[in-house]
This record gives sequence, structure tokens and C-alpha cells, in this order.
Amino acid sequence: MPNETKRRIDRELPDPVICTVDVVLLTLVDDTLQVVLARRSQQPFQGLAALPGGYIHPATDRDARDAAERVLREKTGLRSPYLEQLGVFSGAGRDPRGWSVSVAWYALVPWEALETRWTAHLEIVPAGSVRGLPFDHERIVEEALDRVRSKSSYSSLPVHLCREPFTLPQLQAVYEATLGESINKVSFRRKMEELGFVEPIPGAQSGGAHRPAQLYRLRDEFRRNLSTTDRGINSGG
Amino acid sequence: MPNETKRRIDRELPDPVICTVDVVLLTLVDDTLQVVLARRSQQPFQGLAALPGGYIHPATDRDARDAAERVLREKTGLRSPYLEQLGVFSGAGRDPRGWSVSVAWYALVPWEALETRWTAHLEIVPAGSVRGLPFDHERIVEEALDRVRSKSSYSSLPVHLCREPFTLPQLQAVYEATLGESINKVSFRRKMEELGFVEPIPGAQSGGAHRPAQLYRLRDEFRRNLSTTDRGINSGG
Repeated sequence: MPNETKRRIDRELPDPVICTVDVVLLTLVDDTLQVVLARRSQQPFQGLAALPGGYIHPATDRDARDAAERVLREKTGLRSPYLEQLGVFSGAGRDPRGWSVSVAWYALVPWEALETRWTAHLEIVPAGSVRGLPFDHERIVEEALDRVRSKSSYSSLPVHLCREPFTLPQLQAVYEATLGESINKVSFRRKMEELGFVEPIPGAQSGGAHRPAQLYRLRDEFRRNLSTTDRGINSGG
Repeated sequence: MPNETKRRIDRELPDPVICTVDVVLLTLVDDTLQVVLARRSQQPFQGLAALPGGYIHPATDRDARDAAERVLREKTGLRSPYLEQLGVFSGAGRDPRGWSVSVAWYALVPWEALETRWTAHLEIVPAGSVRGLPFDHERIVEEALDRVRSKSSYSSLPVHLCREPFTLPQLQAVYEATLGESINKVSFRRKMEELGFVEPIPGAQSGGAHRPAQLYRLRDEFRRNLSTTDRGINSGG
């Protein structure tokens, strides 16, 4: 075959690329962000703890989000936690099987939603001290943490770590754990009002005998969409 | 073959996925954001104007960014404009060739950098009125516009649309065109000082005989990284 013809065919049908999804599943335990890892049941890196991930299945997955939701369901039992695309990690070097594209996602759940589905092949690790992960999973965790912290400073994102119903001080503690800094109580309440993603539950108060507090829940329209503000939640503005 | 065995093999080696990159290349003409389209030389949609895009070439591309830069170079002649990942668009329905993953990027260039490389297979269209594009390219353009507008309100992003050297009023006009609103001159200058990504060129002034203005350039460390602020550039804060 003449070289030029061969090159043209090569360009039309390049070598296949391995397509996977990986999910950085975050939860809050002891006021610390934790990453959920799953022990790999197959090669490569069989037996090692890694981000829950797997091949995209074109025969059954509608799109990459659908693949990520399936992988989470299969590996953690979770159904439709809050899930956002983080970005693509790609190249020849990141997967020993060959040139690969991983569509990475991050998901947030209250610990109570995970606890009831816990199995022996899962583990949690403080997100800031994840070590020894296979592939480029450490870099994916780092980028997810950067994204979650930055987004938490101007949006409703952290509420997805919070079990419902919650009091405003409980929600504030979740924001503080996610942002890694304390927030002024008055300006936090003002921000929550401005963002408008929580609503008081009529007639529901927390059990404290001396100082019962109003209980809140997430408004339905913000279960899959974030509420955002121009100015930082911790800016005091 | 027993069904269970077959299923296990299917899970290990799923059908291949088509992997491409697409680039939303934006420039500013007549104070309006424009998208650069390239006439497709191959099927599907041969002859139609579309986002510059193409297969990932595992044999020669280091990663998806490298593929996007190669596609831009091949289709527009541009070398290393400002380029950021937008996200993945995926699924069975978006490409008639089959289940596909497109890693989408957006790039910004001053019109003058494009003009000198212009060829007949390119066209520009006002970004807000892009119609009739193949694949899901209209959705990709919409998401790129949302991202660029939102990021422009708190970062140095729009400077990449601006030919160097520039005066501060020229840079302000580029911000106003990108954000679609006017900005107070005093607070704009304050924001530029806070962001610190431009520097005066010693001894260089624009040619105006009556009111010569200082000329500026982008600092080298911000050619590939954005400078960002917590508070919006147009917030007056």
C-alpha cells in the first residue's frame, strides 16, 4: 500500500482509546472531608484501593454521566448522589493498558447515606492525605478537592454533605469543614438567605430542651442544580 | 458460550468508543465575540461549517490537550493560543459514526493573530447567533460562552482576546464586550491593579497627540495561568 494512502486511512481510523469514568466520592466524617476508595477486583492494580471507576459501556450507558452513576451504584450501592463532571484525564502514560481517556466526576453524600451500604471492599481516607493510589488517581483527587473548596465558597455545594433535616449551625459546620475556616454566624445566615436553597420545615425543631432550633431541608429545585452567589460566602460581604 | 462468561468478557472489553476533541475558538471583532468555524473536509457532515475538531491520535498525541492543540494548528494555523478544557460531551446520539466522547476545549485569540492565517475554509459567526451546526456543536458553543462570560467576571481571561500592547481603556472595552455590560472606569482600574496580570511597558505610550496613554502588556506568568479575584470585576466592590 502506498504510504500516503496508508497514512490517510490511519488518520481516518486511529487506534482505539480506552474510555473509562472515575468518581471522587466525598463525604464528611469527624468534620473532615473523606474520599471513598474501592478495592479493585480486576487487573491492573487488582486488590489495590482506588477511585471507584470502570469502562464506559457503549451498549448500555446513555452517556458518560450515566456510566459514572452506574459505576457508583455497582461499587457503593449509591443512587443519584450529587454528581458533577470534573474533567478529562488522558494520555499514554496513565493506564498500563494503553492510551486512555478517563472522564472524572466528583460526588458528595452525607456519611449516613453511605454507612448503611458499607461493604468490606470500601474504605475512607481523609481527602487531604490520600497516598499510593494507582493510575493518576491522586492528581484527580487533588483537582476534585480544589474544585469542591473553590465552589463551596460561593455556592450551595456543601449542603450535599449534610444529612437532612439540619439546623443552620449544623449547615454552617459543614461549610466550615469544607472550606477549612470558620465563618461569621451573622454573615453566614445572610448568605443562606441570599442563596435561598434551604427552607424551614414547618413545625420542625431540633430536640435541644433548652434552645430548640429550627430544622431545614434542601429545596427540591436545588437537588441537582447549585445556587450560586457572586461574592464569597466567607468574604463577610 | 454460557451467558455469564460472555457477560464477563463483555465487561472486560467493551465496544470501542470514538474519541475526538472539539475546540470553541473565540475572538473579538467589532466588539462582538465570534466563534471560528471550519468547513469539514470529511464525512460525516462533509462541507458543513463546524467547530474545529478531529480524532484523538494515540500514536502521536501525548494527551487530549495535545490533540486539541494539533487540531487547532492543522485547521487554523494557530500555535498555543490560550486554551482551557470545557468538559466532555458524550453518548450514542451525538455522532452518526457511533458512541462517542468529545473532549471540548475553548480557546481565545486576538483577531489580529487569526487574520494573518485566514483561509477560505474558515468562517466567523457571532457567538450568540450560531445556528445549524452539526453534532451537538451548538450546545458546546453555548456552554463555552457561559463559561467564558462567568470566568471573565472574576479573572484575567478576556486579556487573551486583546492584541498587545494595549491601553487600559482598550482592555476595559474587551472586558465590556465579553461581559456584555459597561464597567465603571475607576473600579476597573482598581481591579486590574488587584489582579496584577498586566504591566506597563516602560516608555511606551499610545500615539494620541492630545492625550497619550500608557501601553501595557500581559505579564509572562499569566500567559497560561489565570489571575483570579473573589469578587466580580463588575461588582463595583
